[in-house]
Amino acid sequence: MKNKPLILITNDDGIHAKGIASLVEAMKDFGDLVVISANESYSGMSHAITVKTPLYLKDMGTKNGVRYYMTNGTPVDCVKLALHTVLDRYPDYIVSGINHGSNSSTSVHYSGTMGAAREGALNGIPSLGFSLLTYEPDADFSSCYQIVKVVFEDVLKNGLETGVYLNVNIPYTDKIKGIKYCRQGKGKWVEEFLERTDPRGRKYFWLTGHFENLEPNATDTDEYYLLNNYASVVPCTIDATNIDSLKKNKNYEL
Amino acid sequence: MKNKPLILITNDDGIHAKGIASLVEAMKDFGDLVVISANESYSGMSHAITVKTPLYLKDMGTKNGVRYYMTNGTPVDCVKLALHTVLDRYPDYIVSGINHGSNSSTSVHYSGTMGAAREGALNGIPSLGFSLLTYEPDADFSSCYQIVKVVFEDVLKNGLETGVYLNVNIPYTDKIKGIKYCRQGKGKWVEEFLERTDPRGRKYFWLTGHFENLEPNATDTDEYYLLNNYASVVPCTIDATNIDSLKKNKNYEL
Repeated sequence: MKNKPLILITNDDGIHAKGIASLVEAMKDFGDLVVISANESYSGMSHAITVKTPLYLKDMGTKNGVRYYMTNGTPVDCVKLALHTVLDRYPDYIVSGINHGSNSSTSVHYSGTMGAAREGALNGIPSLGFSLLTYEPDADFSSCYQIVKVVFEDVLKNGLETGVYLNVNIPYTDKIKGIKYCRQGKGKWVEEFLERTDPRGRKYFWLTGHFENLEPNATDTDEYYLLNNYASVVPCTIDATNIDSLKKNKNYEL
Repeated sequence: MKNKPLILITNDDGIHAKGIASLVEAMKDFGDLVVISANESYSGMSHAITVKTPLYLKDMGTKNGVRYYMTNGTPVDCVKLALHTVLDRYPDYIVSGINHGSNSSTSVHYSGTMGAAREGALNGIPSLGFSLLTYEPDADFSSCYQIVKVVFEDVLKNGLETGVYLNVNIPYTDKIKGIKYCRQGKGKWVEEFLERTDPRGRKYFWLTGHFENLEPNATDTDEYYLLNNYASVVPCTIDATNIDSLKKNKNYEL
């Protein structure tokens, strides 16, 4: 009898988020699930690790055959704790999300959800992150289930290249047309800071902003497909090298 | 008369670190410098942004013609505050570091120093991060000056491709042979958690580990050159797409 795969589930919206409960629901038939997530939201934490404060880990018990652990760490801390402290062996897969809000285009760099998936890839584990394009805490995630299943079944069947992880974004509509594997669109956050004054008279700032698609005419990017009601899958690499830059073959002897 | 370039300096070891003072020293003749950094160390903060606590900004005045600002934010917050609140215009260059400790290979993903450089690239600004391969707070950074100058002069002269930022690592020796532009080596952190018990009887964990070069026989990686007393320059891209994965041309209609 073949053992079921061991699948680690995590996110950056915290253990109480609807998104992670929805991911557990979508993934429950694929293997033995272990969930590790934080006591609160760690959005925007990217690939951060906690080095200055101690990490706590709480066994939250088993519900419907799924084991739950809670930490005070970032999504990447969650993965590291799972690999080195919680699990008896490395998981076969790591699946992160479902994030409340888009992580398409260059948002992949800010996302804690995608940090967890990247950390999986850095450890040689096939890893995926899912995000739904709405920030509503009580959003309807049911349209995600089919996307999660189709994309994960493809990974089960075909695997992922070493060092590659998937950034999957899902439009918030019940009319999803399909799933497109595509490149990361060029885009940036257009930001400003709200300026306030605290009761002690000190100025303080809140970051605010909106995402801008810098390739509005491209028809092969995640941004394009999401706008056209497709789920987008960007295969991402842990190798940040821009190989083209090396063709200039610049070196200096000192 | 041509205006001097405006150069933003930041780091992740905090405003009082020797590394950032050394970077100011190395960069002072290249343009008008503005320094923005944090009140304490933000190592391991990657590309994190602060979304749950307010950011404060303190004008620390001018020393030797260089303007200093201090924040309570991450390195990426520092860049965003500088672009949107501190500076009258976008800087011509962003230079981050000099980090106390290596950011070679896959450490680029954890590094706050490199987060700041990536944030510059995301905003279309030629950006570089420098790291010295020692964690000594009082390390001798004088061997870095020539490397900083040669690499920055090359950027001044030739520019950087849009979306590309440089990850420069410098061996801790006074016998540096030269500077090699090269690819990011494959490597990972081999980690464990130190387990302790706090005075209230709760277990807690500290992350600890060491870096492992997964390509010990490669002769074209940053790891190889650093071991051989060269400074390494990896041109990194903000485009995380693994283009090879897309050749399979997988799509699903629903």
